[in-house]
Amino acid sequence: MTGGGPRYEPLEEAALTADLVLPPRKQRIDEVLRHRTRSLAVVLDRLEDSFNMAAVLRTSEALGVQDVHVIKNPDVGFKPNQRVTQGCDKWLDVHRHDSAAQARAALKAAGYRIAVSAVTPEAVSLFDLDFTPKTALVFGNERFGVSADVLAMADTVFWLPMHGFTRSLNISAAVSASLTRAVSWRKERLGVEGDLTPDELEALRARFLKLSLKQRGRLFGSNP
Amino acid sequence: MTGGGPRYEPLEEAALTADLVLPPRKQRIDEVLRHRTRSLAVVLDRLEDSFNMAAVLRTSEALGVQDVHVIKNPDVGFKPNQRVTQGCDKWLDVHRHDSAAQARAALKAAGYRIAVSAVTPEAVSLFDLDFTPKTALVFGNERFGVSADVLAMADTVFWLPMHGFTRSLNISAAVSASLTRAVSWRKERLGVEGDLTPDELEALRARFLKLSLKQRGRLFGSNP
Repeated sequence: MTGGGPRYEPLEEAALTADLVLPPRKQRIDEVLRHRTRSLAVVLDRLEDSFNMAAVLRTSEALGVQDVHVIKNPDVGFKPNQRVTQGCDKWLDVHRHDSAAQARAALKAAGYRIAVSAVTPEAVSLFDLDFTPKTALVFGNERFGVSADVLAMADTVFWLPMHGFTRSLNISAAVSASLTRAVSWRKERLGVEGDLTPDELEALRARFLKLSLKQRGRLFGSNP
Repeated sequence: MTGGGPRYEPLEEAALTADLVLPPRKQRIDEVLRHRTRSLAVVLDRLEDSFNMAAVLRTSEALGVQDVHVIKNPDVGFKPNQRVTQGCDKWLDVHRHDSAAQARAALKAAGYRIAVSAVTPEAVSLFDLDFTPKTALVFGNERFGVSADVLAMADTVFWLPMHGFTRSLNISAAVSASLTRAVSWRKERLGVEGDLTPDELEALRARFLKLSLKQRGRLFGSNP
């Protein structure tokens, strides 16, 4: 467009999107971002149950953990039950890996200590873990636990102290217990909850705004 | 029997049973008892899903909580899925109540503070709860949360801080997070895990020995 009339500065796409999202939703996004962390990640080793996959995603998202890594089960696709996730997975980064080696490379590149949940003689209690370093918490298959190659990549092996006749928790209960401990430990000892860098915050904010707009489009039949 | 031959002192049934249980199993029973607590209890208000019922029982047993109270759902029986419980419920005291009033009376008679999980304006964070007093943690129906009469009987209302777009955890995840917090709080701040009285210990020990024997009978086809 040339000639008279008002000139519009080119708008950043994110800023444009932000204008179309309602204020309460924006506040919600900012609140979520303030509590979001990449200092903790969840890693799932070859799960097989779609309800468990979904429950773990939901717990991670609710507790503010942004990244979930999935080591693929060769026999079962990673298909979290959508009735259980209630769509929460769209707010997460779900990283899919073909092998333990690939997952390890990604986690190490991101600076994680790898803490594998397993009952071995050298395992330490969840309650003795220091969560000052960035930590990826790894949980194994429902029936077989973590695989040998995953155990071999552990920087730390931990277990959840259980003192009943029951010696194992359902994976969704185990992830919830572990993440709750880790998140509250970091808040109480380090005084931190959300800890994204300004760049990460900006990028996620733009993404969440877009997703909110899409969702609003679907809910109200508009497509702004 | 009169006359010659050895005389047998009448044996306590418990002592007799103890002699028939194998030493490793006895050690296990003693270890479980050492960590068993009645200072925490779980209360389930009208659950409807048999997998959730089962998962909660399993988590409670694994974490050393002896008592689970169930307020009956008028529409659905309390039938925990047995594939998930893996038989753990036989080691628990599951108390069934027809109404919130009945549950309240039982909990108060046993000296519990009633802490109800709900998102209300006055709810305090799970992480600010002091678990010095005996505490019953109450969790509500999967879809509707706790009922009004249960909320009315609360000494404390608490919530699990959630800072994602997801605002609720699956009940099995919520119970696991809450119990893990309560158990670890009591261990770290009060230095206690198991805290049964000598009488309670003795009674439970006798019961667990009997149950172990029954189990062995079933497993090996003997019926001593």
